[in-house]
Amino acid sequence: MDPVTMVGLDIGATKMLGVAATPDGDVLAEVLATTPVGGEEVVAAAASVVAELRRRTGEALDGTVGVGIPGLVDAGRGALKHAVNLGVDAEWFPIGDLLAARVGAKVAVDNDVNAAALGVAKITGHDDLVYLSLGTGLAAASILDGRLRRGVRGAAGEIGHIPVDPAGRKCQCGQVGCLETAASGSAIAEAWPVTGTPPAQAVFDAAADGDLRAVAVRDEFAARVADAVRVVALTVDPETVVLGGGVAQVGDRLRVAVAHALAEQAADSPFLRSLDLPGRLELVPLDVPVAALGAALLAEEPR
Amino acid sequence: MDPVTMVGLDIGATKMLGVAATPDGDVLAEVLATTPVGGEEVVAAAASVVAELRRRTGEALDGTVGVGIPGLVDAGRGALKHAVNLGVDAEWFPIGDLLAARVGAKVAVDNDVNAAALGVAKITGHDDLVYLSLGTGLAAASILDGRLRRGVRGAAGEIGHIPVDPAGRKCQCGQVGCLETAASGSAIAEAWPVTGTPPAQAVFDAAADGDLRAVAVRDEFAARVADAVRVVALTVDPETVVLGGGVAQVGDRLRVAVAHALAEQAADSPFLRSLDLPGRLELVPLDVPVAALGAALLAEEPR
Repeated sequence: MDPVTMVGLDIGATKMLGVAATPDGDVLAEVLATTPVGGEEVVAAAASVVAELRRRTGEALDGTVGVGIPGLVDAGRGALKHAVNLGVDAEWFPIGDLLAARVGAKVAVDNDVNAAALGVAKITGHDDLVYLSLGTGLAAASILDGRLRRGVRGAAGEIGHIPVDPAGRKCQCGQVGCLETAASGSAIAEAWPVTGTPPAQAVFDAAADGDLRAVAVRDEFAARVADAVRVVALTVDPETVVLGGGVAQVGDRLRVAVAHALAEQAADSPFLRSLDLPGRLELVPLDVPVAALGAALLAEEPR
Repeated sequence: MDPVTMVGLDIGATKMLGVAATPDGDVLAEVLATTPVGGEEVVAAAASVVAELRRRTGEALDGTVGVGIPGLVDAGRGALKHAVNLGVDAEWFPIGDLLAARVGAKVAVDNDVNAAALGVAKITGHDDLVYLSLGTGLAAASILDGRLRRGVRGAAGEIGHIPVDPAGRKCQCGQVGCLETAASGSAIAEAWPVTGTPPAQAVFDAAADGDLRAVAVRDEFAARVADAVRVVALTVDPETVVLGGGVAQVGDRLRVAVAHALAEQAADSPFLRSLDLPGRLELVPLDVPVAALGAALLAEEPR
């Protein structure tokens, strides 16, 4: 029985993944479950995952359970808002307290992007990075000088809602031309409707096969992701920018496409070139459950 | 003789201001001098200012002399690049070492915007803020959780070169539609050419007198500054955003105009409204030499 074994849960819209891991980030056990609908139901399912991790590791796992979850999180209170799949919207839902009561351990909660950034920092050894989550939407998380930057209202990293084109598309947030309207999985899905295959995969595959329309969709997407990279580089100037989220499943060709777009944008700007943004890009490690591991690391983060 | 008296120099394009101050930020002596042209000449003039501060205070002032100066600064090496008025461009100029040899004290160097942000934090008591310097150009400096964020290449805060309008104006950095092309003193000067009065002053005065063209110029400028506020709010989410730089000399009506623009931008976005950006805005204190005081505080900053 090892009292320092960490426990983390990555609770997504459709699935939740629990891990037990060593302090070095080596995964000892993984448990995958379906995410039910409804706050109480999610808490019950999460508690079952923790119970299963206890069974598989044979350990008490009575330290802190970390939870990464989409939505607006008040990390100090362990409360959640605006999480559609939980049926949680305008009211704060005390997921931390409810889960703590179920599992008999402390619970630390943060949003999934912050959790993933912590996991990436641990796995890659970088202590100064911005993690870009390219999923349905676009969000970022920053680890600056080794510290997670949440912001005073938990809004740090909401870069998806920075408008960069007055002639752009209306965003669901009410603004126009937000980064997210072009640099997200949803934007790809809209430009390249497919069934069966994830749209990003389909576009990158078709582009590799020489479909010029797919090349155009891919390159436009990559250029808008490059815009997002530029925003974070010129604001906090991190050592590394890590591309992650569902779209990153297309593999290193995502990094290549965005690096290419960054180089294009710098072609006429000695200033931008001097910052070497392409050289700072990395793809999230795809063989490690970074979000669940990062959730486990929430136990050590000040809240 | 008080060994903890701080010394700071704010070296601008045309003038330099030196201050001796208590650790609490109370100014004991101020010395204003003309900034000469040429690196060696600036060092000599700065040394004379320190000598005059020693004479006026009757103190040895042999701790660290802090220097805030426009240009790209390598704070670790005390070296300066891209400072036109110093005749310093592509080569690093070791201003720190040269001044240290002249004055017989350690010297800490940083760019003027970072220095000003430290001064603002000291004077206002805020330990989490972004300082927006609205001068000839646009730049920001961030104090996050009490720590100055320089970035890995000293590029944190270069938000003036974030493009926000593909149909915008060409920027001197080589990109198109950068924030700085619309949210800076230069942008006002171009839209409202005057002699004698600072253009920002002239525009705000004329707008207050009911000149509709001036109202349009003022409101467009304020909206673009609001864009800059939104960029930093959605990236690092600071407690306070402080408006400073030469344009801030127009007084609190600058804050009012930008707050109004932020409220307009949030009119259709419950998400933006929830962040209360107008409520986080402050005007830099105009009765205190924040940049020189902040330069003095560089002595305490890790480099």
